[in-house]
Amino acid sequence: MKELVKDITSRDINFADWYTDIVKASDLVDYSSIKGSMIIRPYGYAIWENIVNILDKEFKNVGTLNVQMPMFIPESLLNVEKDHVKGFAPEVAWVTHGGSEELEERLCIRPTSEVLFCDHFKKIVKSYRDLPLIYNQWCTIVRWEKTTRPFLRSREILWQEGHTMHATEKEALDETIKMLKIYENFQRDYLALPVIVGKKTDKEKFAGADVTYTIEAMMYDGVALQNGTSHYFGQGFAKAFNIEFLNKENKLENPYQTSWGVSTRMIGAIIMTHSDDHGLVLPPKIAPIKVNLIPIGNNENVINKINEIKDLLEHENITCNINNSDKTPGYKFADAEVKGYPIRLELGNRDFKNELVTLVRRDTLEKIDVTFDNIVNTIKELLEDIQNNLYNKALTRRNSMIYTASDYAEFKDIAQSKPGFIKVNWCGNVACEDKIKDETGLKSRCIIEDEQTDGNCVCCGKLGKHKIYFGKQY
Amino acid sequence: MKELVKDITSRDINFADWYTDIVKASDLVDYSSIKGSMIIRPYGYAIWENIVNILDKEFKNVGTLNVQMPMFIPESLLNVEKDHVKGFAPEVAWVTHGGSEELEERLCIRPTSEVLFCDHFKKIVKSYRDLPLIYNQWCTIVRWEKTTRPFLRSREILWQEGHTMHATEKEALDETIKMLKIYENFQRDYLALPVIVGKKTDKEKFAGADVTYTIEAMMYDGVALQNGTSHYFGQGFAKAFNIEFLNKENKLENPYQTSWGVSTRMIGAIIMTHSDDHGLVLPPKIAPIKVNLIPIGNNENVINKINEIKDLLEHENITCNINNSDKTPGYKFADAEVKGYPIRLELGNRDFKNELVTLVRRDTLEKIDVTFDNIVNTIKELLEDIQNNLYNKALTRRNSMIYTASDYAEFKDIAQSKPGFIKVNWCGNVACEDKIKDETGLKSRCIIEDEQTDGNCVCCGKLGKHKIYFGKQY
Repeated sequence: MKELVKDITSRDINFADWYTDIVKASDLVDYSSIKGSMIIRPYGYAIWENIVNILDKEFKNVGTLNVQMPMFIPESLLNVEKDHVKGFAPEVAWVTHGGSEELEERLCIRPTSEVLFCDHFKKIVKSYRDLPLIYNQWCTIVRWEKTTRPFLRSREILWQEGHTMHATEKEALDETIKMLKIYENFQRDYLALPVIVGKKTDKEKFAGADVTYTIEAMMYDGVALQNGTSHYFGQGFAKAFNIEFLNKENKLENPYQTSWGVSTRMIGAIIMTHSDDHGLVLPPKIAPIKVNLIPIGNNENVINKINEIKDLLEHENITCNINNSDKTPGYKFADAEVKGYPIRLELGNRDFKNELVTLVRRDTLEKIDVTFDNIVNTIKELLEDIQNNLYNKALTRRNSMIYTASDYAEFKDIAQSKPGFIKVNWCGNVACEDKIKDETGLKSRCIIEDEQTDGNCVCCGKLGKHKIYFGKQY
Repeated sequence: MKELVKDITSRDINFADWYTDIVKASDLVDYSSIKGSMIIRPYGYAIWENIVNILDKEFKNVGTLNVQMPMFIPESLLNVEKDHVKGFAPEVAWVTHGGSEELEERLCIRPTSEVLFCDHFKKIVKSYRDLPLIYNQWCTIVRWEKTTRPFLRSREILWQEGHTMHATEKEALDETIKMLKIYENFQRDYLALPVIVGKKTDKEKFAGADVTYTIEAMMYDGVALQNGTSHYFGQGFAKAFNIEFLNKENKLENPYQTSWGVSTRMIGAIIMTHSDDHGLVLPPKIAPIKVNLIPIGNNENVINKINEIKDLLEHENITCNINNSDKTPGYKFADAEVKGYPIRLELGNRDFKNELVTLVRRDTLEKIDVTFDNIVNTIKELLEDIQNNLYNKALTRRNSMIYTASDYAEFKDIAQSKPGFIKVNWCGNVACEDKIKDETGLKSRCIIEDEQTDGNCVCCGKLGKHKIYFGKQY
């Protein structure tokens, strides 16, 4: 068993090393010759395909249409909206030559596509009858990050970006919230991630947005991962791009706009929330392979039975694979743990005679002996139980790492000694937000809109305006 | 009716203008601010999604695993295989800056990913037990083309590229042919395209390949469209990249490699094969919307009946939409024709009283009155009939535009006077191939491997070695 897991650093000793060990050892990714550009291997890509398939259906259910925009943005187009270009220009990759010729205008590779959508919307929006436009694209974006880590912060990111335009402010705001809810439900129900949903401060919002809503997940080490955003733009981009439509009163008006996105970063969140020192742990609903079947020995009865079980499971749409290699049972068990298959099923010759298999659930490593006639039903129940257990375990841990602080001394003390989030009252002033960041390293995560303040600002002591979370971030 | 179709040039007057009119008028694409980068609009992208879904299943059925490689290739990596870099370097886009900093080594955006896969395979291939590797990725590539046209030749191309490595030459050759067959069957059965399948000459094969197999379709105007390729690389890349594995005899050997790809160009082929002066014509099996439902007038019974028919069709998995706009019936009929919905269904108040609907099939524009109780069955039959008719029509036309020539005078005469392909005997010498291209503009399309020569080379009169097609190409 040791031969496989020895290379995984313990997560309590060095969380960063543990993470990179896990993504490599479980064959999710490989590094490429290009710094910050990872190779997503078949097992990692299968997780992404599951995510895409589920979300794409959800998007289409609410009327979203998929499109494909160019990957290039001419420099002049990026410059149209001033806040936006300020936010993104420092981190784009520039194409300057096509073949041997220098381009007349350099092109950046999209870091996000607001300006490309605006450029298109301008041509196709004329009347309220053309609205709403509810578009999405699955694509790759590029951000020239200095420090990179697989799934969490890479130069190339696989993601989806929704871009919508509406005739009224209310409709656009509703869209922003609707898509945020889809993300929240998906992450809870499929990825087993407990998330906090709220509004970014003005300082932390998206470059060019009126309002940014965010999904904040807390990793095992207490550090926050921003795991999806939904932005309301108001008419800002529409005005900058001079997009107008004839409204129902036959007057020209600028439409109201949103955008929203999630990325392969969610795979990073799954890993850093559920996995352990034995390897990857995947929530059953997103795992490409739900059951790993391990025959022990070469006995023909065992092999036949394993094949029979595979057919039974596949008939019930439970994906599984057989480890037929010539490795030792111990190696195969360790491999199943490293790969994070939710359940492994072991069958040897003695078990066969007793008409029993052993099921091992990955979340607890608990072993359960099950009679032949109960295999499928037990597996179905176990998969559900594992899914729920992963969520509940993550929720309990996260809640145990959320603190409150009534004054700044207490805040600084917690910030220094306890990883996690601190939930406080805040005056709404960026000066306090800056001071907290500079002095403690904690950034504002999000404002909780539906919660009242119950005291003064934790930093300056003036009137509290918002309940807000602070925390370190990836 | 004129108001919609007036902007479509007749295909017999100017085929190129007709084509660009069709892609714009049917809302498949829009032009962007970046030359050669098109916007694929929802209707166009829905066709691509159908293609992707069908092919992806076919690939997975034969054991293909999806992955995602970086989009960047460092210049030094592109340079490793000499033929390959010579073929692609003149048409790549170069990234030279990240943010405000100049890169130490410039990166090209992948024009194809052989070298990226080799760079990865080198790390993961050690033994024959690691083989075969049968990988595919759906992605965007960039080729800096001078002249561009939507779907046919653009700077950004959506495609899939399969890359495989095998322990034996035979297995790799079999893979090359297997994937070629999948393309051929897909294009015939779904896209209703009659295609010629054969081997490229050495002059026309892929840069770095031992053998290139090609799918050659003939467009309405007699011009060829290369609509998919499958390459056998032998050990060329493996040697250049120093990829070795321990074979069953425990000896180090270079693995055998293939790659294969099809792209959004197939959408161009559908258009240029089936569409007409009224607009787009889509084969039912690939059409995002199979039936367009048009209520005539506002009568409540009509509206209810239309909705009822929609439910009935959707229950049978026949996609449909309702044109509820306030446009005139004539406008809606023309719109249905421009969009290429395989069937439109018209229902007015008088029809309703007679319990009849009118079905209009897009391929022939023939009208059929059908009683209420026969709608679903008739539509099912019609869809099948339209699919077959489109294929047969295209096949008949293509066959009528394939000529033979026994000497060079006859060849030149046909090349000048008759659009289409010319099938001839060829000595296999590149000098004849070059001469034909220089003097007639016709390029070799492909060698037909399973056909014997029946005479001397059409160009030089020496011994005929191959049966080969010549034709102009897109």
